[in-house]
Amino acid sequence: MSISDRKRAVVLLSGGLDSSTCAALAAGEGFEICALTIDYGQRHAIELEAARRVAAALKVVEHKILKLDLRLFGASALTDDIDTPKDRAVEDAADIPVTYVPARNTIMLSLALAYAETRRAFDIFIGVNSLDYSGYPDCRPEFIAAFERLAALATKAGVEGADFRIRTPLLHLSKAEIIRTGTALGFDYGLTHSCYDPTPGGLSCGHCDSCLLRLKGFAEAGLKDPLRYA
Amino acid sequence: MSISDRKRAVVLLSGGLDSSTCAALAAGEGFEICALTIDYGQRHAIELEAARRVAAALKVVEHKILKLDLRLFGASALTDDIDTPKDRAVEDAADIPVTYVPARNTIMLSLALAYAETRRAFDIFIGVNSLDYSGYPDCRPEFIAAFERLAALATKAGVEGADFRIRTPLLHLSKAEIIRTGTALGFDYGLTHSCYDPTPGGLSCGHCDSCLLRLKGFAEAGLKDPLRYA
Repeated sequence: MSISDRKRAVVLLSGGLDSSTCAALAAGEGFEICALTIDYGQRHAIELEAARRVAAALKVVEHKILKLDLRLFGASALTDDIDTPKDRAVEDAADIPVTYVPARNTIMLSLALAYAETRRAFDIFIGVNSLDYSGYPDCRPEFIAAFERLAALATKAGVEGADFRIRTPLLHLSKAEIIRTGTALGFDYGLTHSCYDPTPGGLSCGHCDSCLLRLKGFAEAGLKDPLRYA
Repeated sequence: MSISDRKRAVVLLSGGLDSSTCAALAAGEGFEICALTIDYGQRHAIELEAARRVAAALKVVEHKILKLDLRLFGASALTDDIDTPKDRAVEDAADIPVTYVPARNTIMLSLALAYAETRRAFDIFIGVNSLDYSGYPDCRPEFIAAFERLAALATKAGVEGADFRIRTPLLHLSKAEIIRTGTALGFDYGLTHSCYDPTPGGLSCGHCDSCLLRLKGFAEAGLKDPLRYA
């Protein structure tokens, strides 16, 4: 199969564990990958470096990093000056976390849709997960289905009959299952970054929601996290 | 009625004729206006100045200008190096114009939704028009309805019961009716800018699709366009 015969996909790639697994899955399906990283003014800019490492390791055909400074609006621990919660019981996170970024996945998917349309890529991969992050409204299956309906109406390609698919292979997987999936594909999680509050030297804190979920996932998968913790 | 009793709205304000009329209508309804201008790397950056003038004239409570460089993706005459069409018959524009920006209104509304959620503004005004711009898929009523359904699912506020409304008061108006509406509200169209291809000195070209639609609108409304043309 030559490169030109391969289908193309846009993958939203933050450099975190979930989006990187998504990218590995898209590569495993034989997609030619156009990776899109949104630099939305988050504190953990170190994730951008992780995204570059993952994109290179998976041999994507194109990697775009789009700046979008959502700090202009504020109102999230990831973009504003609210403290990142530490050592919370992950199982208790029924409420919407303060790390919720208003309309985050709507914005991410909109930008991915624009990119996908220009590249005639009709599969858009996003690493949302309804299990570990049940608190986020825009990680739910009904949100994804609504966006897919929107995409058909929103674009020239959609009007002309293209069938945009929002691919969410991680939607119903536990963190342990996600890690097992990527590991089975030979993906190196040492390339990724998850911590909301890394040290200046880039070590993960081990105590924010994201680190706790990650460590719990590796423990449940019976695997060792290759990242270094403070 | 004190300021704090007033309802708040986000208005997408490009500085063009349509979005400025939208803002004037929102002001006329008594909304406290949070104006949002997206600087998406378009050629006519002179529009940003128009947006600032309109925001000041309408006494908005906040005006945010968000940079989002969609030139990263290309594929539109407004963001890429494709020539702007000149002196086309406006009535013949049945095809989707080359000035179509992929997923433009999906992106604009996503960003407006994020802004609106942080400000607890549940009315979002966008100056889309299904008559003069019938070629754009994301100016159609069915697109707007789909986005409204998405907004309820996409946000914390929506999950908690807030009813986001995408307000499109210009949807079924002709350009002449839009101009008459704004003029009746006392709005000064000399503050706005429409041209896709202005001279370095800021004069409108008078020949691009946008100028032609504008001039035709003023002529049909029996009014004189206060802008200066090259």
